[in-house]
Amino acid sequence: MNIPIHYCMQCGSKTHQVIPDGDQKLRHVCSKCDTIHYQNPKIITGCLIEHDNKILLCRRAIEPQHGKWTLPAGFMENNETSSDGAIRETLEEANAKISNVHLYSVYDIPHISQVYMIYRAQLVDMEFSAGSESLEVKLFNKEDIPWTELAFSVIRQTLITYLNDKKSGNYNLQTGVITAEMKSLLKEVPENV
Amino acid sequence: MNIPIHYCMQCGSKTHQVIPDGDQKLRHVCSKCDTIHYQNPKIITGCLIEHDNKILLCRRAIEPQHGKWTLPAGFMENNETSSDGAIRETLEEANAKISNVHLYSVYDIPHISQVYMIYRAQLVDMEFSAGSESLEVKLFNKEDIPWTELAFSVIRQTLITYLNDKKSGNYNLQTGVITAEMKSLLKEVPENV
Repeated sequence: MNIPIHYCMQCGSKTHQVIPDGDQKLRHVCSKCDTIHYQNPKIITGCLIEHDNKILLCRRAIEPQHGKWTLPAGFMENNETSSDGAIRETLEEANAKISNVHLYSVYDIPHISQVYMIYRAQLVDMEFSAGSESLEVKLFNKEDIPWTELAFSVIRQTLITYLNDKKSGNYNLQTGVITAEMKSLLKEVPENV
Repeated sequence: MNIPIHYCMQCGSKTHQVIPDGDQKLRHVCSKCDTIHYQNPKIITGCLIEHDNKILLCRRAIEPQHGKWTLPAGFMENNETSSDGAIRETLEEANAKISNVHLYSVYDIPHISQVYMIYRAQLVDMEFSAGSESLEVKLFNKEDIPWTELAFSVIRQTLITYLNDKKSGNYNLQTGVITAEMKSLLKEVPENV
């Protein structure tokens, strides 16, 4: 998101908003040392883990969406790969070790400047439990997925797409755009899934 | 990359490096207002455009790698989708309008904290030319690709993979990791492509 940058990270002077030479967008530029503070989308990386026909979900112990269910996922860190990030987040949030990690979906969420990369993966063993950012971690049968208690539209969309792919057994890469308007669907149980 | 953040973007006070509560990594945290300055990987989005069995490349008019050849690509901006970013960068760097834009490859480059998303696309017409960040824009036959004059390892890898996929006509999503060591390959013409 475009959080205002009031001061220069390099010299501490005030910034002002200006379109730099050769650029087309307003940037926060230092009024003293001319450092340009670019802001770019962030990647959220995580896992859709299926075990014994059930899907692993975590109930969030943190804001936003405290108490709601989600896939284990979080911000990709510098100097890691997106799959290593997905493995790390799954370990942190669900204390779960995983294998067979393959990229399954790439969803753009332009209104909050995020890109979600979700990997399909399998549990190495049945040892999993709530990490510090989770209230509980549970495997859900398709029929028991808490659709109206999901945290984010992108998670709902990923689960719907996955359950449809499961019918054909054909898990090609999914891409798409999540809009702000889709948030209202979080109150509804999807049909034909 | 992990550029040092010396001053707080919100209040201009000095930062210090500390692992915040509940975190596992060193962050630049404001010593006065406690704002945590996270740094995360950036997405580069661009296009691999084939026309009449030729591939469109741009010769860079900017650093890094001034004078070297690359695919039209650049940093994804806030509030756009990755495909819209690829279309925008292609227009900016090659003055080319494109259609049939489909995600083709996702490469992690952890040592510089970048993720490359390259889309396959087609030219809408034959109107293309060097944008302000390009010295020239040209369609290359496979035999004429300037392998030893390419700007980046990820571009070399994308082109090799694409030309191999072309043999089978099967363009499934490509994923992989680009390491710092692969830079030395930029001096070599690949075999069996």
